[in-house]
Amino acid sequence: MKLLIVGGIAGGASAATRARRLSEDSEIVIIERGPDVSFANCGLPYHIGEEIPHRESLLITQLERLRQRYKLDVRTRTDVVAIDRVARSVTLRNLDTGTQSQESYDRIILATGAAPIRLPLPGIDLPGIYSLRTLQDMDRIKAAIDAKPTHAVVIGAGFIGLELAENFLRRGVPTTIIELQNQVLPPLDAEMTTPINETLRKHGVELRLGDSAVGFAQISNGLKITLKSGGTLEAELVVLGIGIRPENRLAVESGLEVGPRGGIRVNRHMQTSDPSIYAVGDVVETFAFLSGEPTQVPLAGPANRQGRLAANHVFGKSRAYRGTQGTAILRIFDRTVAMTGATEQTLERLGRTYRKIYIHPNDHAGYFPGAQSMSIKLLFDPVTGRILGAQAFGGSGVDKRIDILSVAIQAAMTVQDLEESELAYAPPYGSAKDPINMLGFVASGLIRGEHPQIDVDKLDQPTDRLRFVLDVRTPEEFQGGHLPNSVNIPIEELRQRLSELPKDQEIVTYCQVGQRGYLATCILNASGFHAKNLSGGYRTYLLYHPRCLGPAN
Amino acid sequence: MKLLIVGGIAGGASAATRARRLSEDSEIVIIERGPDVSFANCGLPYHIGEEIPHRESLLITQLERLRQRYKLDVRTRTDVVAIDRVARSVTLRNLDTGTQSQESYDRIILATGAAPIRLPLPGIDLPGIYSLRTLQDMDRIKAAIDAKPTHAVVIGAGFIGLELAENFLRRGVPTTIIELQNQVLPPLDAEMTTPINETLRKHGVELRLGDSAVGFAQISNGLKITLKSGGTLEAELVVLGIGIRPENRLAVESGLEVGPRGGIRVNRHMQTSDPSIYAVGDVVETFAFLSGEPTQVPLAGPANRQGRLAANHVFGKSRAYRGTQGTAILRIFDRTVAMTGATEQTLERLGRTYRKIYIHPNDHAGYFPGAQSMSIKLLFDPVTGRILGAQAFGGSGVDKRIDILSVAIQAAMTVQDLEESELAYAPPYGSAKDPINMLGFVASGLIRGEHPQIDVDKLDQPTDRLRFVLDVRTPEEFQGGHLPNSVNIPIEELRQRLSELPKDQEIVTYCQVGQRGYLATCILNASGFHAKNLSGGYRTYLLYHPRCLGPAN
Repeated sequence: MKLLIVGGIAGGASAATRARRLSEDSEIVIIERGPDVSFANCGLPYHIGEEIPHRESLLITQLERLRQRYKLDVRTRTDVVAIDRVARSVTLRNLDTGTQSQESYDRIILATGAAPIRLPLPGIDLPGIYSLRTLQDMDRIKAAIDAKPTHAVVIGAGFIGLELAENFLRRGVPTTIIELQNQVLPPLDAEMTTPINETLRKHGVELRLGDSAVGFAQISNGLKITLKSGGTLEAELVVLGIGIRPENRLAVESGLEVGPRGGIRVNRHMQTSDPSIYAVGDVVETFAFLSGEPTQVPLAGPANRQGRLAANHVFGKSRAYRGTQGTAILRIFDRTVAMTGATEQTLERLGRTYRKIYIHPNDHAGYFPGAQSMSIKLLFDPVTGRILGAQAFGGSGVDKRIDILSVAIQAAMTVQDLEESELAYAPPYGSAKDPINMLGFVASGLIRGEHPQIDVDKLDQPTDRLRFVLDVRTPEEFQGGHLPNSVNIPIEELRQRLSELPKDQEIVTYCQVGQRGYLATCILNASGFHAKNLSGGYRTYLLYHPRCLGPAN
Repeated sequence: MKLLIVGGIAGGASAATRARRLSEDSEIVIIERGPDVSFANCGLPYHIGEEIPHRESLLITQLERLRQRYKLDVRTRTDVVAIDRVARSVTLRNLDTGTQSQESYDRIILATGAAPIRLPLPGIDLPGIYSLRTLQDMDRIKAAIDAKPTHAVVIGAGFIGLELAENFLRRGVPTTIIELQNQVLPPLDAEMTTPINETLRKHGVELRLGDSAVGFAQISNGLKITLKSGGTLEAELVVLGIGIRPENRLAVESGLEVGPRGGIRVNRHMQTSDPSIYAVGDVVETFAFLSGEPTQVPLAGPANRQGRLAANHVFGKSRAYRGTQGTAILRIFDRTVAMTGATEQTLERLGRTYRKIYIHPNDHAGYFPGAQSMSIKLLFDPVTGRILGAQAFGGSGVDKRIDILSVAIQAAMTVQDLEESELAYAPPYGSAKDPINMLGFVASGLIRGEHPQIDVDKLDQPTDRLRFVLDVRTPEEFQGGHLPNSVNIPIEELRQRLSELPKDQEIVTYCQVGQRGYLATCILNASGFHAKNLSGGYRTYLLYHPRCLGPAN
């Protein structure tokens, strides 16, 4: 067996080492265009920010180790010019010498990744405009930051854009993010990005949402960026983080099928339309775990697993890829945002029935020092209770809850299962009723009709029905901010003041996070009223109606 | 409906508030012997250590709030003297006035908890000998620690014993732990307690394993403790943490069934042998999630869930208890130990076939600062791959992995599923191949025969077969410590030095954590040798053969 692997970073390196373990005798060749293989591309922004102090630590597996330990034939600075699928041969070009050569193959694994998108804007090729993919890109951006610029601009508020902005600020460089959409992190549901905006602004990032750069010009001390909104910005450096496109040239030229967004089409064994050629990682179009619909999700975890699976299949150890859930996480200064499974946007687009709840628990027992708050949004099937997706923002413990929910989605668990989950509890780590259990309680209560709830966005919609909005918090909490037209009756007084409430209107109860509102709903419905609890209470309301900072723009 | 709840801490308080949400009109009475309800009993040791600075914060729900907000009839300092099951009436005694009264009931929930065991040893009732259950117990122990004793003794190295020792050390009080068994934390498998011993000793705790106190005598400056081993210890205070027994007097006197260890027998709805009487929490005998065998596991999470379930069933919202997995966690100074599901001890006792693996990964990407190492032991079915149990020790991230595995056990997942889990990866939080995935890779490789492995304890057993033990680490690592009679050939040189190895013996390869040993096994078996990899490598060997500190005793 002679296996060529094109691209030696995440998926390619995983495929190569796995292949060697499965076959000591095969010829395994890694062909990599860049000078480096198996580097930690997720770490690049953090070396710019000097949180990862040593550049060498980004080289996960040294070239020599791949050669010696894994007996791999690694050819860096080498491009695959063409694939001759009939002759089973590829044309290689040494990028240093320009010499071309032929290499036969039995199987190919394409792991060519994706390249940052560069829009054809006026001035896009001016010096000072960067994108980040390779260690060399990182070196250039870091050099620009080391020069202590007075201002940096990041175009695009996706994962890379936010990581860059954080690391620029860490280096003391004032930074503006320009994002075409009206929210940061477009893969998230919009309301869940409200606390991200607040965190970014608190740490000095300037956010310009719903705007874009339309051109660049050189000025004496750097660049002038012209905005779609009409204004201009000046900065010594601009980094483009507006997205990536699959590096599919080789696949297209070889006649392999690609999807509408450019990802190479593969089956569940990562085989392309030519069964001798596999593709893995950011270059492929795969499918969503829950819906089965085609998707392109550039994440390191799936890339590595796909690399393993492709190598498995090459050597007859077949196991099918189960699809991508889209589990992702991002540190935003001292906070964390994470997600798994479908978002509300996605479920709406698919026309799938769902319900949602919000909770705002602490990561561990409130009586133990250092408890940090988080907000979790859970999406689930309103009939079966099957978990469809989750998003969370907060301090420590967000990663744990999203990982638990990711595994729960993988196992097709329901919100009823979450009620019964037995999680590790000691005061420094959790609560006797963990946030995961709380999600189960609140969502199951909704399904079973024990805990009628209404969502903030539903409440925002105009209705013919008369609604009475009842705030059951303390007068102090009420005075600190409340829903429009709400009436305050603290929960402790509610039973004595039922006569103040209308029986012919829907009553929406709410408190700070939902717990007192739930009890109020129980009390009212047991007394002949028609009450629903606002899911997640005032804190969820504030996600939809950011208070202090004005409109996000 | 008139519901009496006997005991107002974890399970009782949960049952009461749940019952009120389900029924606004029922009469719900909490009868609590102590002066406090709903306090954070898991937090008591940490207030002694002053990590929880304010005593009030241990009162989770104030008495007045339970009365006002939940309309509960709470009677503290009140004992239930007897239950008349025929007349459906209980006799109450006010512990302050001594007056008795009758109270009728429709349903009772017993949540009387468990009491610390006090052995009938000479001098056991001397002043200075404490146990910890209530806030008042805590106050007494804290006062003794506040007096700055020169030495404290904790008898019993279970969860409470270790928490107390840590908090005493935190207050600067030298502390000795005496434990009858040859290991700390007897619920864990012995080898997994090795790093706990090391951590305790590093922080100044003196451990006396395999020993016990046989008597106490008053001396001028405190107590003299006579040990079974013959020696004596002196200390100003002694705390008993040798275990608890269910507070089952009421149940026994009422003729309810109890198990051999004293736990009240209940069905899956938490009903005792009298269907009008429920029991929840530390007082019950329930069943193990995996094996279904009867078990008594005093944990706050199950107690709270059982309280909810009992209240549900009283009000016709029936859902069955799924059994207790035994998910538990403990902070030990700056480290964490946690477990879920069955241990090897348990599986041996049940005669269940299983396999085990060990891994020693970092909590997050090694290239990102602050990565901390952990050790995970995974037990699984060797045929189906079903996950049976897990134990872990290490720094940050241990709680996350055990919680994920707990949910995986709940969902009847297999090690093959863990290979495919899609967990949240960014450098501060995990790795592209998370420890959970690694567990899946290593265990699945074992099941599929791709990765033959041998366990340290198997290697320790005498055998007729000739074995060749091959260390594939660097010479420097080898010189730092290695297995007896092992030969060192670094992995990079292995392919060139195959002639040095025997074809007629079983070769056991090992490295530091198992990865290079795995590759060595692949290389050797592809070349006609018979090789197995030592699961978890030298670090697992050190769990079984602690090196620096001599025997644990």
